[in-house]
Amino acid sequence: MVSQRNKQDLLNRMRRLEGQVRGITKMIEEDRYCVDILLQISASRAGLQKVGLSILDSHTRGCVTSAIKENRGDEMVDELIDVLDRFMK
Amino acid sequence: MVSQRNKQDLLNRMRRLEGQVRGITKMIEEDRYCVDILLQISASRAGLQKVGLSILDSHTRGCVTSAIKENRGDEMVDELIDVLDRFMK
Amino acid sequence: MVSQRNKQDLLNRMRRLEGQVRGITKMIEEDRYCVDILLQISASRAGLQKVGLSILDSHTRGCVTSAIKENRGDEMVDELIDVLDRFMK
Amino acid sequence: MVSQRNKQDLLNRMRRLEGQVRGITKMIEEDRYCVDILLQISASRAGLQKVGLSILDSHTRGCVTSAIKENRGDEMVDELIDVLDRFMK
Repeated sequence: MVSQRNKQDLLNRMRRLEGQVRGITKMIEEDRYCVDILLQISASRAGLQKVGLSILDSHTRGCVTSAIKENRGDEMVDELIDVLDRFMK
Repeated sequence: MVSQRNKQDLLNRMRRLEGQVRGITKMIEEDRYCVDILLQISASRAGLQKVGLSILDSHTRGCVTSAIKENRGDEMVDELIDVLDRFMK
Repeated sequence: MVSQRNKQDLLNRMRRLEGQVRGITKMIEEDRYCVDILLQISASRAGLQKVGLSILDSHTRGCVTSAIKENRGDEMVDELIDVLDRFMK
Repeated sequence: MVSQRNKQDLLNRMRRLEGQVRGITKMIEEDRYCVDILLQISASRAGLQKVGLSILDSHTRGCVTSAIKENRGDEMVDELIDVLDRFMK
């Protein structure tokens, strides 16, 4: 679970990312220069990665930490490694 | 420049991606399970990558090819490699 | 710390990767086709990523889990997220 | 094809990378701290990426440019996009 403060920050970042992604659609619609579109795509992907890393942080500090303290950490770590594997691609 | 047919396909994919990104915001708002959010982020990043690759394809076949044929390919390739460098991160 | 069994597996994978990386050098030396070299580079990077993920797994199950159980998990998670951030690039 | 000057630079970088990869094996052998090993893996992957980008640059300026000038650029670009797709993962 994400803390209230962190949640607001993530929501703000997601709204900006929504705008950025809509901006990419518009750039394609308006036949803007490919390289400029690619740079925007690159920026949005980096922004999503940053949100993901922040969620990973909360998840590890929250759910994973609780599970480990209650001696049921193993499946949690399996799941974490699995999601990291996908995330790194 | 992206061809008309390819453009429509890209716009369809971008609309789906817009929905996916709004979906991530909603998941954060509703305190959904972190791992599920991370999987959605991962899927959106992969979708953006795929759109990017398709734009790279058009760009190389279009602008870069024309520039090379007119013997002004060098700066185009500089710019291409530069955008690839950012894109790969 | 990596378990003995996992360690042997990692060492075997690393020896193969060492051979693969030497193979890339040789391909460059022998002026082999660029695309073939790029595919080998891509395979080596994927192999290194896999070794990294396996070490991340051991680290989370080992050091991070112990630290969390002894209520000194916070810095460990900071360090973990920091290394993930670099790793994802 | 890579130019002679660029080739020597690539070979120097590859020798350093070979050493770095052997260093990772040694770190695993000596049970070094996981996070330190992960940072080395991360650095080697970034080094390989850089070599790859430099080869991509030569390939685009050389083979791809020649093929385009001789009106047989299409398959070359197909191949290029295909290798970029793998490379970005």
